[in-house]
Amino acid sequence: MTSADAMLRGVIPPVCTPMTPDYQVDAVSLTRLVDHLLAGGVDALFVLGSSSEVAYLTDAQRRVVLDTVVGHVGGQVPVLAGVIDMTTPRVLEHVRVAVEAGVSGLVATAPFYTRTHPAEIRTHFRTVAVRGGLPLYAYDLPVSVHTKLSADLLLELAGEGVLAGVKDSSGDDGGLRQVILRREAPFSVLTGSEVTVDSALWMGADGVVPGLGNVDPHGYTELYRCASRGDWEAARVEQERLARLFEIVHVGGTRMGGSSSGLGAFKAALHLRGVIDCPITALPQVPLNDEEAGRIGKLLASAGLL
Amino acid sequence: MTSADAMLRGVIPPVCTPMTPDYQVDAVSLTRLVDHLLAGGVDALFVLGSSSEVAYLTDAQRRVVLDTVVGHVGGQVPVLAGVIDMTTPRVLEHVRVAVEAGVSGLVATAPFYTRTHPAEIRTHFRTVAVRGGLPLYAYDLPVSVHTKLSADLLLELAGEGVLAGVKDSSGDDGGLRQVILRREAPFSVLTGSEVTVDSALWMGADGVVPGLGNVDPHGYTELYRCASRGDWEAARVEQERLARLFEIVHVGGTRMGGSSSGLGAFKAALHLRGVIDCPITALPQVPLNDEEAGRIGKLLASAGLL
Amino acid sequence: MTSADAMLRGVIPPVCTPMTPDYQVDAVSLTRLVDHLLAGGVDALFVLGSSSEVAYLTDAQRRVVLDTVVGHVGGQVPVLAGVIDMTTPRVLEHVRVAVEAGVSGLVATAPFYTRTHPAEIRTHFRTVAVRGGLPLYAYDLPVSVHTKLSADLLLELAGEGVLAGVKDSSGDDGGLRQVILRREAPFSVLTGSEVTVDSALWMGADGVVPGLGNVDPHGYTELYRCASRGDWEAARVEQERLARLFEIVHVGGTRMGGSSSGLGAFKAALHLRGVIDCPITALPQVPLNDEEAGRIGKLLASAGLL
Amino acid sequence: MTSADAMLRGVIPPVCTPMTPDYQVDAVSLTRLVDHLLAGGVDALFVLGSSSEVAYLTDAQRRVVLDTVVGHVGGQVPVLAGVIDMTTPRVLEHVRVAVEAGVSGLVATAPFYTRTHPAEIRTHFRTVAVRGGLPLYAYDLPVSVHTKLSADLLLELAGEGVLAGVKDSSGDDGGLRQVILRREAPFSVLTGSEVTVDSALWMGADGVVPGLGNVDPHGYTELYRCASRGDWEAARVEQERLARLFEIVHVGGTRMGGSSSGLGAFKAALHLRGVIDCPITALPQVPLNDEEAGRIGKLLASAGLL
Repeated sequence: MTSADAMLRGVIPPVCTPMTPDYQVDAVSLTRLVDHLLAGGVDALFVLGSSSEVAYLTDAQRRVVLDTVVGHVGGQVPVLAGVIDMTTPRVLEHVRVAVEAGVSGLVATAPFYTRTHPAEIRTHFRTVAVRGGLPLYAYDLPVSVHTKLSADLLLELAGEGVLAGVKDSSGDDGGLRQVILRREAPFSVLTGSEVTVDSALWMGADGVVPGLGNVDPHGYTELYRCASRGDWEAARVEQERLARLFEIVHVGGTRMGGSSSGLGAFKAALHLRGVIDCPITALPQVPLNDEEAGRIGKLLASAGLL
Repeated sequence: MTSADAMLRGVIPPVCTPMTPDYQVDAVSLTRLVDHLLAGGVDALFVLGSSSEVAYLTDAQRRVVLDTVVGHVGGQVPVLAGVIDMTTPRVLEHVRVAVEAGVSGLVATAPFYTRTHPAEIRTHFRTVAVRGGLPLYAYDLPVSVHTKLSADLLLELAGEGVLAGVKDSSGDDGGLRQVILRREAPFSVLTGSEVTVDSALWMGADGVVPGLGNVDPHGYTELYRCASRGDWEAARVEQERLARLFEIVHVGGTRMGGSSSGLGAFKAALHLRGVIDCPITALPQVPLNDEEAGRIGKLLASAGLL
Repeated sequence: MTSADAMLRGVIPPVCTPMTPDYQVDAVSLTRLVDHLLAGGVDALFVLGSSSEVAYLTDAQRRVVLDTVVGHVGGQVPVLAGVIDMTTPRVLEHVRVAVEAGVSGLVATAPFYTRTHPAEIRTHFRTVAVRGGLPLYAYDLPVSVHTKLSADLLLELAGEGVLAGVKDSSGDDGGLRQVILRREAPFSVLTGSEVTVDSALWMGADGVVPGLGNVDPHGYTELYRCASRGDWEAARVEQERLARLFEIVHVGGTRMGGSSSGLGAFKAALHLRGVIDCPITALPQVPLNDEEAGRIGKLLASAGLL
Repeated sequence: MTSADAMLRGVIPPVCTPMTPDYQVDAVSLTRLVDHLLAGGVDALFVLGSSSEVAYLTDAQRRVVLDTVVGHVGGQVPVLAGVIDMTTPRVLEHVRVAVEAGVSGLVATAPFYTRTHPAEIRTHFRTVAVRGGLPLYAYDLPVSVHTKLSADLLLELAGEGVLAGVKDSSGDDGGLRQVILRREAPFSVLTGSEVTVDSALWMGADGVVPGLGNVDPHGYTELYRCASRGDWEAARVEQERLARLFEIVHVGGTRMGGSSSGLGAFKAALHLRGVIDCPITALPQVPLNDEEAGRIGKLLASAGLL
């Protein structure tokens, strides 16, 4: 079981995966992005999450990401790795690779694609935890996984020492709060919702995993610092600035899917800010066009980032 | 574009993947299962589909399945391969392996896990078709993929020569019929619904991909032959016998997910019929217990299969 | 319990509700529509179903429809009435009115709007059956009710004598077949899917409740007669003509909801055929425009109806 | 358009509808409940909402509720009325009755049961607002209505003066915040989530419509007062007590639907607290049993309410 001291806390951005124009991992830009995030004061990094386009990366590309980031970070902060796949045996393959790469923790969803059941989800997390031998965080992302992890299930697995925490990207802050109030063992509750971080921290969440943190890591660490020292008013002001910036994810509108629009916006912003060389997103995502990139630039400027 | 002569037709079971008690692919049982299916008169084989537990197989296990089946079949019938993964780049990895293994066609779903869009689905299938260089079949399985492939999208891609056909496991026979009535280019329409095969053939479908065909391949080939020679009454009688047999998939009830219950039932039945050595299903599925296996035995006996 | 003789069979169109330009029930057009349907040879009428815009009609309007149709039909054919509302107490109000109006049977959905449960659905149908004192048909319409009625639940209530049949508009013909194969008591299975009527009858369904039957009742009665005398080939030819005609429901496209598009198409077609005076649909539906009405006219002409 | 002064603010409980053992509205208990709420210091009352079992009440019962509450309150606080029905014409009937009864504002959902569209939702709210002539609040309840009201749609209708506010029971506090940040006209944002009231107020929400407020109105008014005077720490302590109390809604577990469990718990608690005579809920809800009522009693005691 995780001790309270070792609990994961703070700002842990899910690191975008920059690509070259021919869709290869751009390790140079990725390294620059890591430096940008570390300079922003983040507490840990989460690679191979949804915002990292993990669903679009081949296994070889995932390994490049792991090796690049773990190598470059060199232990300055913990690096968590997503082990995102459909079921236990496939997830265990990613676990093996991530452990070899030297990550500090693992992040797994419930099974998807298959028609699953709480009994299977329990077996899944238990098996991954035993085989991983590292702190395991449940990734609650119903929009992708089509299952909501209940507070009961999370707390049962926390009590067993199977789960060290949860990254809650469900948007259900009522559920988040029930987990916070009912937890007994040390159990990191991290919100994945970019626009309710101040309130999640207020409820007792331990940290945040913000996709938008790629674009403005300093904003999120400032928010977290304000909250940590009890200056909630300043935290709210910062959160509201970030919530307005978050509008970049809607610029793509209805001519593309939400993944294209959101991940494309993060990369377009990173490109405009000079952090990555190319804003391309993996196939089959629809790219943002120049007009849309222009609108993202204006939102960056409004947020004081250009 | 597929010529009418080359069109895929008939009974094409999605081949179950037998496993050893330690969850490895049991190549001996798999070979025996292939013989059982060929002896049942099937027209082609579909490996690495949902009924093959493809979502649970590691890449190495998928390759064992491909090599085992393609090698053993030796060209007697076409072998199609599922290339099931979340997005285009990952699917293309499976395409490469399947092509190397020498399969005759590929079966791909729309992207899943990501929040997708018709424009992205089109790009996805177009890219897979070009890179595969083999007939490509769309796999319409909303229960897993959480997107329904519309008739318009299928027919547009058929007209472009991107898709050679569809495996329709949506259960929406009205939609199936619209595709049949509106198709212009040769385009194989295959139903994946075990209990409405006679009526799908009646509507003009070209074949069936029945998970239950693992258990009773002869039943489905008899059904198809009756329909082909216009003896619809005999087809219906056979279909009704198979529909009653299909109740085995509900034996697992509510204590497990639908995948556990359905795939577990197929394997339990194959084990009871002496085709495979072990009825185990991959993790994290809930295994059927002895009482449930007993009820499956009774349903097999009622269908004249034990 | 219904005796086999009294079982509902044949073509039972859900009668559209024509309206005046100021959104009142147009009893004159409604009467003309009833004559059109009776002249088409239908076996019964179903008023206040989804195709009747029941969800849009006030209680007073529902009563006008009931009185107009029951009065005009004068016992020539049975008239079934939808008693569509959120829960048991509200449904019972509609039951009382329908019984007073002299209908022959009642059609009810599971509860909706509330978060329901099979135990509640059973109580619901049992209560409605007892209070109605008329044959009760379950209306399985997951697209509206957001619950699928399982074969087990339907057959349990059939066995108790609570349900006299089901109108299955779920599109799940595999589920429909399981009900047909497993029923023991007399239990009318009626499909609500306009484009798979021949195959549903082939499976043993007793009849059809086709919204498109408003537009072409003769087509559906011809289809049913062909099937009844075993001329399945002729049934299929007729069904395929009707399936092509059914494309009228998609003319409205994505600028409106499916209800606006489908119900608007039926009414536009009835108007073009001279059966009703005004094609208007109830608020807040989006009306079809002239160009769309023109395309519906072309599809009618192609089907030989203009 | 609402002026800022007239904006609805504070604690506005959705008033439960007590019933007699034969399922009639218990006006005596209802009056007692209103007194209990007013004594608890609530700012307004919302009758005929989901927590009022509006979906289960006949039109006559709804009228009894309106007359009883409006009459008894006698203008001490505003009374809002839910006008919950499937579509515009049916909602307008409820509007007429509510206006006659003398309510101060109306609460309407988007259309449900029908397959709807944003263009239709706009027409719906515009029509209801014009005909009602009273402040109109949108009720965002995707679990019942199966549509989520987008921030864009709400703000467009706010800008037009159609909507005076929203009752957000979607659980999506990120969406709630976007509405708060982007609103320009006076527009009341009220959360319907019982366990995140402090954080919603922190974000700038104007009030809360808590079902649990029936059981403990004083708790919610205390929470609101603490927040209003900037004592957020005290607000959080009170919220956490209420969040623990909210566990009563899960006591019914999986043997009933969520409506039965939640509404049954509120009524059981009101009965145990001596506010209403009978804890019965409308058909077809599953009643809580004695053991479950006992557990509710313990949770009440833990919250200091027994």
